[in-house]
Amino acid sequence: MSELFSTFPIQRLILAVNAGSSSLKIAVFEANSPPVRLASAKVERIGASDAKITLAIGGEASRSEAVVASSHDDALAAIMSGLRGKINDTSIAGVGHRLVHGGPNHSASEVITPKLLDEIRQLEIYDPEHLPSELRVIETLKRRLPNIPHVACFDTAFHHDLPAVARRLPLPRRFDELGVRRYGFHGLSYAYLIDHLARLDHEEARGRIVLAHLGNGASLAAVRDGKPIDTSMAFTPAAGIPMSTRSGDIDPGLIEYLLRAASMTVQEFNRTVHLESGLLGVSETSGDMELLLERESQDVRAEEAVAIFCYHVRKCIGAYAAAMGGLDTLVFTGGIGERAAKVRHRVCVDLQFFGVELDPTLNEINAEVISSGILPVKVRVIATDEEQMIARDVIAAIE
Amino acid sequence: MSELFSTFPIQRLILAVNAGSSSLKIAVFEANSPPVRLASAKVERIGASDAKITLAIGGEASRSEAVVASSHDDALAAIMSGLRGKINDTSIAGVGHRLVHGGPNHSASEVITPKLLDEIRQLEIYDPEHLPSELRVIETLKRRLPNIPHVACFDTAFHHDLPAVARRLPLPRRFDELGVRRYGFHGLSYAYLIDHLARLDHEEARGRIVLAHLGNGASLAAVRDGKPIDTSMAFTPAAGIPMSTRSGDIDPGLIEYLLRAASMTVQEFNRTVHLESGLLGVSETSGDMELLLERESQDVRAEEAVAIFCYHVRKCIGAYAAAMGGLDTLVFTGGIGERAAKVRHRVCVDLQFFGVELDPTLNEINAEVISSGILPVKVRVIATDEEQMIARDVIAAIE
Repeated sequence: MSELFSTFPIQRLILAVNAGSSSLKIAVFEANSPPVRLASAKVERIGASDAKITLAIGGEASRSEAVVASSHDDALAAIMSGLRGKINDTSIAGVGHRLVHGGPNHSASEVITPKLLDEIRQLEIYDPEHLPSELRVIETLKRRLPNIPHVACFDTAFHHDLPAVARRLPLPRRFDELGVRRYGFHGLSYAYLIDHLARLDHEEARGRIVLAHLGNGASLAAVRDGKPIDTSMAFTPAAGIPMSTRSGDIDPGLIEYLLRAASMTVQEFNRTVHLESGLLGVSETSGDMELLLERESQDVRAEEAVAIFCYHVRKCIGAYAAAMGGLDTLVFTGGIGERAAKVRHRVCVDLQFFGVELDPTLNEINAEVISSGILPVKVRVIATDEEQMIARDVIAAIE
Repeated sequence: MSELFSTFPIQRLILAVNAGSSSLKIAVFEANSPPVRLASAKVERIGASDAKITLAIGGEASRSEAVVASSHDDALAAIMSGLRGKINDTSIAGVGHRLVHGGPNHSASEVITPKLLDEIRQLEIYDPEHLPSELRVIETLKRRLPNIPHVACFDTAFHHDLPAVARRLPLPRRFDELGVRRYGFHGLSYAYLIDHLARLDHEEARGRIVLAHLGNGASLAAVRDGKPIDTSMAFTPAAGIPMSTRSGDIDPGLIEYLLRAASMTVQEFNRTVHLESGLLGVSETSGDMELLLERESQDVRAEEAVAIFCYHVRKCIGAYAAAMGGLDTLVFTGGIGERAAKVRHRVCVDLQFFGVELDPTLNEINAEVISSGILPVKVRVIATDEEQMIARDVIAAIE
C-alpha cells in the first residue's frame, strides 16, 4: 500500500486536518468515492515537554515517538516531515479543515476565501479555546499549499436547520443578536453516520434515528428523514449529558451559589464544568471510561460515575424517541459507543417498552448490529470517521 | 358552612401557611381525614403599593381588596383580622409551614423545635430568596400561637431518597460538602398526588408514574412503587424545563460567554435565568400560558414559547419513561396542567409508541381521566392541593 501511495499521480490526495487546542491530526486520503485512507498522523500535547507524534502509514503498524512541538506550526512541520517521501505537496488536491464552530451562518462545508477567513475570525468569541489554533493551522497550510482549495468543515453545520423548539434556548430573545442558540457539535461524525447508514440501508436512513456519539466528548442527536431534530450539546460542547470531564447541562440557579459558597470566579467555574466534572468529577480518579469500568467493582465512586453516564444517555434516548414520536434505529459510536459493551447494555436494558432489545452476545463482540431482531428498533455500532467525512466534503467542493 | 365553622369546638382547626417572597397564603382546615378546607386567605404583592388581600370563607365567593402590607408581618395581621369572628386562636390545633428548602437532612415534615429552627436558619444559604420570609412568618406565628405544634413541611422532602444517579449532579464530588445535590421541589404537591392516586386506585399508585406539575413554576417527577426516581428541578427551582420566567437547565459553557458578550454580572445572569427567561423570555410579552395561548395565532413569539414549553415537557416524560423502563400513569396538575387542554394535547400527541393516547373530548373538558382507554397508559388530571398535604402532615404530627 505504501508504495502505491508514494507513487501517486499528481493531485489525487486529500488532507483532512483536525486541530485541537493541544493536538493536531492529519489524515491522508486518496480521492475516491468513498475516499480511501492512506495515512494518519497526529501530534499530541503540543506545548508540553512530552509532546508525541504518532504516524500510521498504509498498512503499517502505527509508531509513536517524542517530538519537539511548542506550537501548532511545529506540530504541522513534524507531521509533514514524517510523511515526506510518502506524499509530495504537488500530489495534494485539496485540504479540509475541521472547525469546531461555524456560528449561525454556515450550514455546509465551504471553500475558504479571504472573506470566509474573516468571518471565521469573527467567530472566535464563540469558541476562544479552539478556533484560534484552528485558524493558525489554516493560515500556515494555505501559505504552504496556496494553489489548491482549502475547505472549512464546520462541526456545527449538520445541526444548522434544527427545528425552532430545539434550536432556541429558553432565554431572553434579545440574546439572539449575540448568536445564542443551540449549535450542536459532532456534526461531521453525525453526517458520516447518516451517510454510512444510507449506504447500508437507504430506507433505514430515512427513519427516526438516535445517534449516540460517546467519547471523551459525548453527545446525542435525533435525526428524522435525514433531517436534524435535536442534539444534546448546545451553544458550547459543554452542554448535554455528563462527559469525561464536562458536566453537561446544569441548574442555572446553582451558579450564583457555587461562586458564593465555593468562592469561585466565573473563570474557575468555567474550568470546573469543562475540565473537572463529569466522569472525572464523580469518580475523583479518572475521566476514562475504560479505567472506570475496570475499577467499578472496587470503587463506588467509579461505579457511580459510570452509572450516571449511562443513566443520562438512556434518558436522552427516551427524550429523543418522544420528540420524534418513536424510534427506528439507535446508533452507538465514538470510543465508548464503539467499544464499551457494558455501557451499551446499561443504556439499553429494560427499554423493550419502546422496542429496544440487545442481543447480549452480539453486543459483547461489538457487532455491527447488536439488537435482538425480535423487537423493532435496530441497534447498530458504527465506527465513525470524521476525517473521511472531511475528505468527502473536500472532494465535493473540488468537483 | 361558615356558621358551622365559627362555632367550631376548641382545637379542631389546622392552619396551612405558605409564605412566598412577596406573598402569604393561609388555608384553614378542619382536622378530619382527609382534612376539609374551610377558608383560604392570601395577601399578594407584599411590599408594593398595590398589595391585595383575598379571602374565601366557607362556600362564599372569594373577595379581594387593597391592603396595606409592607411586610409579611403586616400581611399576617391582615389575614388573621380578615378571618376574625370565623376562627379564634384557641380553636387552632396546629400550624403547618411550607418551607421551600429542607437541605440535605430532612426527609419528612417535622415539628418545629428551637433546634430545628436553628437548622433551618443554616439553610438560608441554599435559598436566600424564600427562606428568610418563611422563617419570619414562623417566628411571628409561634409567638402568637406558642402552645400548639408548628410543623415544618419541606417541599424537598418527597425527593429526599432519590437514587444516586438522579440525586448526584455530575460535578466534582468535593461539592458534596457544600450541600450540592438534586433536591427537587413541588414535593408537597407530588406527595398529595401520590396519596390521592392511592385513594383512587391502590395498585395504580404503586406503578411507574410521571407527575407533571405545570404552573408558573413547573417540574416533573418520576415515581415507581411509591418511591421517587427522578425530578427535573435540582439544587434550585430554576432547573429542569423552561417555566413562566425561569430558563430551566442551561449549557454551562454559555455562562462565561454571556457575562462577557452581554457584559452581565453573575447577579444579573441569576436574575435573567430566574425572572426574564422561559415563556416570558421567548415570547417577549408574557410568562402567562393562558395569555400566550390566546396570542399564539397572531404572534410567532408566543407560538414559539408555547411550543418550546410543550416540547420540553414531552421530552422529560420520554426521559422518565426510559428511566423507569416504561410508564403506567401520567398525571397533569398545576395551573397549566389542570386547565390547558392544548398544552396536554401537544405534550402527548404521537406518544402512542409508548402507550400514551388522549381522548380529545375528555381532554378538552379537563376530565379526571383523559386517556383514550385503548392504549395502556392512564393519563389523569388531578387538581393538586399542597395546603391539604400540609394539613395532613400537621394532623399526623399532632397524633
